[in-house]
Amino acid sequence: MNLRSGRLGKKMSAKTAEFTSSLEFDRYIFQADIECNLAHTTMLSRQKIIDPLIADKIIQSLEKLKSEGIEALTLDHSVEDIHMAVENYVTGEVGEEAGFMHTAKSRNDQVATDLRIVLKEKVDEIQGFILEFIGGILEMAHEHQETVMIGYTHLQHAQPTTFAHHLLAYAHSLKRDYERLKDAYKRVDLNPLGSAAMTTTSFPIDRNITTDLLGFSAYMENSMDAVSSRDFIAETIFSLSLLVTTLGKICEEMVLWSTYEFGIIEIADEFSSTSSIMPQKKNPDVAEIARGKSGILYGELVTILTILKALPYTYNRDLQEITPHLWNGVKHSQEILDMVANMLLSVKVNKERCLELAGANFATATDLADIMVREKKMPFRTAHKIVGRMVTEAINQKLKPEEVTGEFLDKISVDITGDKLNLDEDLIKKALDPLENVKMRTVPGGPSPVMVQKAMDNLEEYIKKEKRKNK
Amino acid sequence: MNLRSGRLGKKMSAKTAEFTSSLEFDRYIFQADIECNLAHTTMLSRQKIIDPLIADKIIQSLEKLKSEGIEALTLDHSVEDIHMAVENYVTGEVGEEAGFMHTAKSRNDQVATDLRIVLKEKVDEIQGFILEFIGGILEMAHEHQETVMIGYTHLQHAQPTTFAHHLLAYAHSLKRDYERLKDAYKRVDLNPLGSAAMTTTSFPIDRNITTDLLGFSAYMENSMDAVSSRDFIAETIFSLSLLVTTLGKICEEMVLWSTYEFGIIEIADEFSSTSSIMPQKKNPDVAEIARGKSGILYGELVTILTILKALPYTYNRDLQEITPHLWNGVKHSQEILDMVANMLLSVKVNKERCLELAGANFATATDLADIMVREKKMPFRTAHKIVGRMVTEAINQKLKPEEVTGEFLDKISVDITGDKLNLDEDLIKKALDPLENVKMRTVPGGPSPVMVQKAMDNLEEYIKKEKRKNK
Amino acid sequence: MNLRSGRLGKKMSAKTAEFTSSLEFDRYIFQADIECNLAHTTMLSRQKIIDPLIADKIIQSLEKLKSEGIEALTLDHSVEDIHMAVENYVTGEVGEEAGFMHTAKSRNDQVATDLRIVLKEKVDEIQGFILEFIGGILEMAHEHQETVMIGYTHLQHAQPTTFAHHLLAYAHSLKRDYERLKDAYKRVDLNPLGSAAMTTTSFPIDRNITTDLLGFSAYMENSMDAVSSRDFIAETIFSLSLLVTTLGKICEEMVLWSTYEFGIIEIADEFSSTSSIMPQKKNPDVAEIARGKSGILYGELVTILTILKALPYTYNRDLQEITPHLWNGVKHSQEILDMVANMLLSVKVNKERCLELAGANFATATDLADIMVREKKMPFRTAHKIVGRMVTEAINQKLKPEEVTGEFLDKISVDITGDKLNLDEDLIKKALDPLENVKMRTVPGGPSPVMVQKAMDNLEEYIKKEKRKNK
Amino acid sequence: MNLRSGRLGKKMSAKTAEFTSSLEFDRYIFQADIECNLAHTTMLSRQKIIDPLIADKIIQSLEKLKSEGIEALTLDHSVEDIHMAVENYVTGEVGEEAGFMHTAKSRNDQVATDLRIVLKEKVDEIQGFILEFIGGILEMAHEHQETVMIGYTHLQHAQPTTFAHHLLAYAHSLKRDYERLKDAYKRVDLNPLGSAAMTTTSFPIDRNITTDLLGFSAYMENSMDAVSSRDFIAETIFSLSLLVTTLGKICEEMVLWSTYEFGIIEIADEFSSTSSIMPQKKNPDVAEIARGKSGILYGELVTILTILKALPYTYNRDLQEITPHLWNGVKHSQEILDMVANMLLSVKVNKERCLELAGANFATATDLADIMVREKKMPFRTAHKIVGRMVTEAINQKLKPEEVTGEFLDKISVDITGDKLNLDEDLIKKALDPLENVKMRTVPGGPSPVMVQKAMDNLEEYIKKEKRKNK
Repeated sequence: MNLRSGRLGKKMSAKTAEFTSSLEFDRYIFQADIECNLAHTTMLSRQKIIDPLIADKIIQSLEKLKSEGIEALTLDHSVEDIHMAVENYVTGEVGEEAGFMHTAKSRNDQVATDLRIVLKEKVDEIQGFILEFIGGILEMAHEHQETVMIGYTHLQHAQPTTFAHHLLAYAHSLKRDYERLKDAYKRVDLNPLGSAAMTTTSFPIDRNITTDLLGFSAYMENSMDAVSSRDFIAETIFSLSLLVTTLGKICEEMVLWSTYEFGIIEIADEFSSTSSIMPQKKNPDVAEIARGKSGILYGELVTILTILKALPYTYNRDLQEITPHLWNGVKHSQEILDMVANMLLSVKVNKERCLELAGANFATATDLADIMVREKKMPFRTAHKIVGRMVTEAINQKLKPEEVTGEFLDKISVDITGDKLNLDEDLIKKALDPLENVKMRTVPGGPSPVMVQKAMDNLEEYIKKEKRKNK
Repeated sequence: MNLRSGRLGKKMSAKTAEFTSSLEFDRYIFQADIECNLAHTTMLSRQKIIDPLIADKIIQSLEKLKSEGIEALTLDHSVEDIHMAVENYVTGEVGEEAGFMHTAKSRNDQVATDLRIVLKEKVDEIQGFILEFIGGILEMAHEHQETVMIGYTHLQHAQPTTFAHHLLAYAHSLKRDYERLKDAYKRVDLNPLGSAAMTTTSFPIDRNITTDLLGFSAYMENSMDAVSSRDFIAETIFSLSLLVTTLGKICEEMVLWSTYEFGIIEIADEFSSTSSIMPQKKNPDVAEIARGKSGILYGELVTILTILKALPYTYNRDLQEITPHLWNGVKHSQEILDMVANMLLSVKVNKERCLELAGANFATATDLADIMVREKKMPFRTAHKIVGRMVTEAINQKLKPEEVTGEFLDKISVDITGDKLNLDEDLIKKALDPLENVKMRTVPGGPSPVMVQKAMDNLEEYIKKEKRKNK
Repeated sequence: MNLRSGRLGKKMSAKTAEFTSSLEFDRYIFQADIECNLAHTTMLSRQKIIDPLIADKIIQSLEKLKSEGIEALTLDHSVEDIHMAVENYVTGEVGEEAGFMHTAKSRNDQVATDLRIVLKEKVDEIQGFILEFIGGILEMAHEHQETVMIGYTHLQHAQPTTFAHHLLAYAHSLKRDYERLKDAYKRVDLNPLGSAAMTTTSFPIDRNITTDLLGFSAYMENSMDAVSSRDFIAETIFSLSLLVTTLGKICEEMVLWSTYEFGIIEIADEFSSTSSIMPQKKNPDVAEIARGKSGILYGELVTILTILKALPYTYNRDLQEITPHLWNGVKHSQEILDMVANMLLSVKVNKERCLELAGANFATATDLADIMVREKKMPFRTAHKIVGRMVTEAINQKLKPEEVTGEFLDKISVDITGDKLNLDEDLIKKALDPLENVKMRTVPGGPSPVMVQKAMDNLEEYIKKEKRKNK
Repeated sequence: MNLRSGRLGKKMSAKTAEFTSSLEFDRYIFQADIECNLAHTTMLSRQKIIDPLIADKIIQSLEKLKSEGIEALTLDHSVEDIHMAVENYVTGEVGEEAGFMHTAKSRNDQVATDLRIVLKEKVDEIQGFILEFIGGILEMAHEHQETVMIGYTHLQHAQPTTFAHHLLAYAHSLKRDYERLKDAYKRVDLNPLGSAAMTTTSFPIDRNITTDLLGFSAYMENSMDAVSSRDFIAETIFSLSLLVTTLGKICEEMVLWSTYEFGIIEIADEFSSTSSIMPQKKNPDVAEIARGKSGILYGELVTILTILKALPYTYNRDLQEITPHLWNGVKHSQEILDMVANMLLSVKVNKERCLELAGANFATATDLADIMVREKKMPFRTAHKIVGRMVTEAINQKLKPEEVTGEFLDKISVDITGDKLNLDEDLIKKALDPLENVKMRTVPGGPSPVMVQKAMDNLEEYIKKEKRKNK
């Protein structure tokens, strides 16, 4: 860093050129930029705006570049951006007539088009992987429909559920994340090409042709808006922010559940680090790093919104600064998704410990009260009072839920209401036994194995349908 | 603030009760909470889970409360939240049997349901207003199809356009904001009721009934996910963040354009402040405040994402802290939208100044070069060189664009290429005259009045269609 | 929300007035605004800029208002802000001469001054409470210098420490939070008064007088900067963001440690909610809400930074929108601090469970290896290998750390190195016993009771010194 | 991205290793890591914890690596981090005894120490550059003490000032940015070394020795806090956020002022882009990009705060994810600072246009009213009324401020008050002439050349003092 003395010369210094260059991130749009030029040149030729022979030469040279790859380009900071590098290449191949490729086109509409082409692919990829991940979760859930575990609220024991039911909570969160990306995609999938610098052009271009050739669903309907709009980027990054939020929650549970104290799961060695001296110790590094990295998306979102804030319409160079944050956000989302999916799906569940915790804390007591209400038409408050007293006494006497009998209950009931309950012993057992308890919850969305199976079937169907669509 | 000495007693202090209470913001969900109780009680009765006579009494008392309004409730911090206040009211009316209303329901699913009911209404309102706003913009644009103004890139003069064309850029941005809300709405419009605390219930409830009664499109498919999910809030606030970003950009342009230096528009007195001593001075206060307030949405979004970060599944009390930020974000969005819409639509455009700036700076020079390419099959670089020289000399000689002649051009052309151009005088005038120039841009999305009219017709059609749907 | 048809009249509507009004939050600066007027009027009088008799009348009326309180003012939206309300009051008392109070002063410098006066008080209050909190932690630590617990890294058992040592980690984090506020305070404590609208005034005011009267440490050195600067607000809110981050970490540990699985602490009933049906269940509501509310500060910080972004110099009305976020952030910080302090200091520690976990997992194994290195000059790798094998075998044989003998170790050593270790039995016990292990860590900053006592003495001293200064 | 079928093997895959590796950003701390090892080994030797001969061998090998540079290391993803790479190197040189270097040290305290060592250097560099920048501003201001320009509030003409006075507003904002970094530095400048994994060590290390050798001002006083604390990073990035906010404001003004409409300044070619076809057009690219890039710091800040949120104490692997955001934020801050400083200091001021705008809009009218109050003891309201009417009539008659006479004023005064003013013609001229008007503002902090000179002298003195300190 240095302060140059005196007034400055005319040329941008290398440092300034680097500061203003987008080359570092333009690699992402290299292929798209060729596609864009191909489609535009084809249209110009069809519309007789440029000589078909010249168009052909340009097209051949672009195809050649496409097969050679980005290494064929000269990319240093004398070259401002990828558009210029591609033009330089084509000029090298076909001479000055390369310039006709830019008739009725500007970097303002071209860069917006390129970004959208690449982002469509990336969103597609991520959507595909989310579907894979949900599929993997379904397979895993299949094994755990009767793996009873305690469900938590406030991180305190609340009610028994199954590991499969909990996994499906993940699956449904991910399904919404998938749908949000699908909706965002609709607004990525719009073609700005033809807007030129900001007011289209006086050449008789046909925007439908380029829209078709580039596979967009429609062209953008106002040229000034088209070159200004970066909301599709903010929206995608936001959708990814919620995706990594879901993944971060999964990581948090993996970290918690793999502690010595919880002991519910064991994370595969591949996703942990161990200590030579404490072989029993396993650090959940991947879960921690993925949880931390989810903060990256929030930050990129804030950066993008900040850049957009109060920016006047049409192209301002600030917009260029949004792009790196898009690609960085996309890259990290993909990596986090990959890691968390593979980590979760290779987790080993300690079924004994799950069952032990499910029964440890009278988490089924509410159901016993419900049964009294249902079977004995007893008012809630009274039922609650009886069960509350029962739990206190059971804990004092170190009774486990399975050791609670009708007699034990009746003694408390007499004490409170003057009457015995005469509840069926089986009903008591069923209410207090975690697995039986879970099986009673046959409401759609609930944990009973039959309902979990139904939810799994629905999700299976959904995945199939979506995969067909995406083909 | 004080540190209490010694170990604490058993009861929550008033201060702690206030800290943990949601009452302040529960007013928003008062009506929804009644609807939720009504639907749930009706379903319980239909399913014979509770006695229809008791159900009727509860329903009557809820209907009574509905008509009396929130003032009928006792709301102090002894009452933890609105659910309890409503229950207290019903208990006061029908006695202890009020408790049956809560069979197979928990505050965890109820609050999630209430929030979604109210948010659906709010999103509806905002969507409706955006359509109104776009309609207003179309009316305004109608008057300005031939109001030529300079278009800016980098805040520098770029190309002439019309005020109508610029207004349509606003309209199309707002249309996307509208569509984003519409997509977010789909994920708000899901019914968590029936999930109870987190694992549904062993009572034979029918979730389809409450879903229908409450007007939801579907119920949520996993009960643990249903009580945990607040992504619908984050998504709505994000969609509103992009809406106020659009509004903030409009404000920025209003502030700029109403400076003495730009002088393009005058903001109505109603949206400005004036000085008694400098009567010509008008401060664009509403535009500035609205621009500033747009930052509120970004902040609320960050708060919500931060609260969600790494939170384990199902209900954690942290979730309660998300709600105030939802309502605050919604309220501010509505106010900003209202203000900016009315401010923009009452702006007075200084057509003379617009035209003056459009012609001030040879912004049409690119088109003159395009014409040389088109008419004379001249390579770009040469055309650019000639026009560049022409602009320099015209500025040196203080010529206005309308004073440039074919002869003047030819002298430069001879100097550079050795040949005259012999361009048609009319063509030169047309290229350089801002309005004629604009009229040549007949590409869809462009500024020519005919294309602007078409875009306006499309938007008109769109608004009508959407309004029909929303009815 | 409604769209007014047609062009608008001249007056601000009530709705617009409310949108642009700062009255709602001006209550915070009511007292400060009087102080500011008092100081300014006194200076004007001393400098003979206004008639001392008029000045006295104004001063008397301001003193009267001060004693009557804000209720004496008319505060509706016809009154734009508190400055005008105060002026109206004084005018009501002394007539039109009240206007002299505003000689050489503008709302631009006055509001900046008012904000700084109030913020100084608030920061002072928070600083005082942090010192109280640290004091409370020291008292609590005093009781737990020998309460051995397991220390975690990656939420896995790492090394034994004491509860007191862990509490001091909180204390030292809070000390830095305190110091950050102290540094921020220096930049709050600067007087903008005298800058007038932006370029000071041609009246011969004396800024030293008002600086002294208002208790500022210095006046701001550039008038344009003085009316523009809101960085002192961003900095204070950031410092509070880190304070609530510390508090949020404490909450996280309270939530974790009070789970059934950890069972290390019990949160006082006052800060929990319980269930009538599950009396053993206690939800850590205050910890959860405080953890959630910490997100508020991050959001306010983002809002403030967003408003500041790319705002030109001197007064823009956007600045008004920063103020509510300051007061909101301050209020929530104070509440969170109060709650978390009182919650932490009333926590009951389960010493038996702490000790049990400390010994559960061979967390002291590293030290045994260290001892081999130290006593037997054995290379690290070899020592690690022996201890690693020892832990594996002990776990296999279900030996507890206290059951490991020299003989057991020697068998492994012979197996690996060919030689016995002949380690002193006492040394082995000392290394493997959690409390003895902790006592060996006598490095400054470490957990041995003697070092913890020293750290406590230093903090005690620090608090005393700071309290003296603040008086 | 792919989902691995079946349960996973034992080894981390290359992809996972890359995901969890910090190597990419560890290059920043290579030199610091050597320093840290050198200091620690020296201390171990002095304390007789390790054999001095072995220590010497280790030290020699570290010195060798220092002179060879990072290229001497093997850095692939088989190597987890820089600490391991350095250890591998030393092991290669001195054999297995290299391990003694890690006696009583852990990666947890080492990485925290390394980060602080490097950050101290970076903050130093930035502080130095800010002082240079302020110095450059002073030189520039020197040339513009009488360059009268209009000052803006609400982006509307408010009062005349000078370009020098405006430049000093920048200088004073930067001075606070400097001081904030200086305060943040105090909390960076603390030594965590000796904390080991989290509870120090049972070896008799001397933390004062390493603190001295590494040039820290003190060691951190609690070992658990020491390995957890990353608030020093958040604070530095926040301080840089406010620095780039200042720079962004300067950029905003450069963009505005270089528009055709304002025309106050011309940005040097080196910091602009031009168009071959519109040679008079110059886009302020560097200002726009720098303004956009300032959003990066806000984003990094949010990422860091998000990662810190609700993380339990001591080392969690999430902390690793904070580091890249620190270095990225530092790098961008340095680049933005460099660019904006050089851009601002090479700007060409259009003095004629500045003066023209200063006189265009009766911005001096307030002072004329002040004079009436002062000279004629006239109440404010009356003075305001007269001046308000004068401005209206002058604008109607197209009079410039310099054409307003005493006679013209008297006619209005008689009309309103019945009396003439008989103001001295000279006084009227002085009040209304922008430069004379400015010269009257001789209050400290004001724009009169004499006060600007004084402010410049003070800043000059400040810079000298700070530079001396930093040596």
